[in-house]
Amino acid sequence: MKATAQAGANIAFVKYWGALDAELHLPLNNSISLTLDQATTLVTVEFSPHVGEDVGEDVIELEGRRAEGRLRERVVRFLDHLRRLSGSRDRARVASQSTFPVATGLASSASLFAGMAVAGLAALGLALEPREVSTIARLGSGSAARSVFGGWVEWVAGGRHEDSYAYPLKPADWWPVRDVIVIVSQEPKEMPSLAGHAAARTSPCFAGRLASTSEHLALARTAILTRDLEALGTVAEAEALLLHAVSMTTDPPALYWLPATVAVMRQVWAWRREGVPAYFTLDAGPNVHVLTTPEDTPRVATGLCAIDGVQRTIVCQPGGPPVLGDVHLF
Amino acid sequence: MKATAQAGANIAFVKYWGALDAELHLPLNNSISLTLDQATTLVTVEFSPHVGEDVGEDVIELEGRRAEGRLRERVVRFLDHLRRLSGSRDRARVASQSTFPVATGLASSASLFAGMAVAGLAALGLALEPREVSTIARLGSGSAARSVFGGWVEWVAGGRHEDSYAYPLKPADWWPVRDVIVIVSQEPKEMPSLAGHAAARTSPCFAGRLASTSEHLALARTAILTRDLEALGTVAEAEALLLHAVSMTTDPPALYWLPATVAVMRQVWAWRREGVPAYFTLDAGPNVHVLTTPEDTPRVATGLCAIDGVQRTIVCQPGGPPVLGDVHLF
Repeated sequence: MKATAQAGANIAFVKYWGALDAELHLPLNNSISLTLDQATTLVTVEFSPHVGEDVGEDVIELEGRRAEGRLRERVVRFLDHLRRLSGSRDRARVASQSTFPVATGLASSASLFAGMAVAGLAALGLALEPREVSTIARLGSGSAARSVFGGWVEWVAGGRHEDSYAYPLKPADWWPVRDVIVIVSQEPKEMPSLAGHAAARTSPCFAGRLASTSEHLALARTAILTRDLEALGTVAEAEALLLHAVSMTTDPPALYWLPATVAVMRQVWAWRREGVPAYFTLDAGPNVHVLTTPEDTPRVATGLCAIDGVQRTIVCQPGGPPVLGDVHLF
Repeated sequence: MKATAQAGANIAFVKYWGALDAELHLPLNNSISLTLDQATTLVTVEFSPHVGEDVGEDVIELEGRRAEGRLRERVVRFLDHLRRLSGSRDRARVASQSTFPVATGLASSASLFAGMAVAGLAALGLALEPREVSTIARLGSGSAARSVFGGWVEWVAGGRHEDSYAYPLKPADWWPVRDVIVIVSQEPKEMPSLAGHAAARTSPCFAGRLASTSEHLALARTAILTRDLEALGTVAEAEALLLHAVSMTTDPPALYWLPATVAVMRQVWAWRREGVPAYFTLDAGPNVHVLTTPEDTPRVATGLCAIDGVQRTIVCQPGGPPVLGDVHLF
């Protein structure tokens, strides 16, 4: 009744921003992402009546700290979904450990809930179709629907729970791009993504962004299928700027950028003017992802580290789907 | 046949971005600004058949440098308008000197063309109504229509040349706010404003911005008439972020910000959390304007100078209308 899974975070080229149903994490548009190999979360889940006997509740320890408040509620609600599926009434113990800073706009909730879905279902002895695992992971965090698959993934928006799931466009070994994650802050971001999704509609840019997504999706799909880094990078940058255009014009505004965020974006453009293939994208946070080729990665990663305010980089390759392991966190 | 005028730049709280007619600088929405006293341009204009006798053309020296290319063409076209009005066929000599860095998003073309309109009309012996002077200044640079007046100014969009003019909402002494201009770069910006106006329509945020301007105009007018700095600052920040949301999502994108731009914006928000009344706005460029009270100006100006990447500040008060003087630049 105990299982451990490791799942990768993902970076979205066409973003998820703004929800049709905030409770079920039904998005307003499809999104497309790449699952990452070096930004992962290890999650152990155990269901047992003996868990938390003294306190009478689930025991949840994320990144070495007892989860509290809304984060705890969110995990308990997710465990309730899993219990409902299996008919279990057991309390659960959950522990997680990530290889990258969480809550800083690097999709840590994607890897956490994808890992929790896979480990939790295994711990409960449930074997489900990947599509169903994806819808379940989505209930924890929208973008977790994508991290249930490795490689290049599209999440179909859908209009109700069972129709909003991700599917793989191409596997991890389809195209060896690199994603250099640039850490400029390890502080939790000021506005969590869930609040950001809710505020999105107050932006005058919201409708325009939504109207752009169909074209962006087509461009991103084609870029992936034809392994065209310039095309993928161009749409990824446009989507990132549009996401931040929306978030900085909500009421109240959310500006996720730090000075170093802008410095990184400008360095990427400077490289392109010199002929180096590098493209940025960023989710709702100050940290930046820089897409480049395997050959250019050393130069790009070294150059990024030299920028004022950059703390470190994490060089990622396309990652596989979540895997179950037998080394548990407790 | 020689006259010199000094005109102030202005800072717009509701912005001009996107043109109905790019040639005539007819905007798509009304805008509201404050004319500044410490960011001014001195312009001397002389009309005479003896000017440029050797070269047979207008002699234009802006900020100590012979004007060339598109800038020169723009000034010559403006001089042609003035000549047409007066029936003059004389060549002109123009010189300008500003107290602040030009072409960096500080509305230097506003003070230049407002000064050139006032000096040029005087040099030609033409006495026109202020409204007409405003429409003429507009032909040089849209925002120059506003700098023809001192204090708090609204520019009526209009749909044809003679109906697109500014008028004063309140004079300079109506409300003693301070505008601390924060210089983070003296480099000419990458995309000139005229190109930015043209590109604006390609942004998915364009329609949303335009739809917001009526509400923003009402808020800004009311804030000025009731001397409500919080209300004015709030709309000024929203307008600034919206302008940059549009410009960073055009095709191709124009990101005017530097790392220090973001640092200044974040410092302003930090001050507000501490109860200091400070609000930012910025036009199409990296330099920032910080609105505050006379009492808080020393603290704000000193604090801004301490930010990494800030070169200097210029503390402005509301400025008067252009004035003719008798000390000429040549």
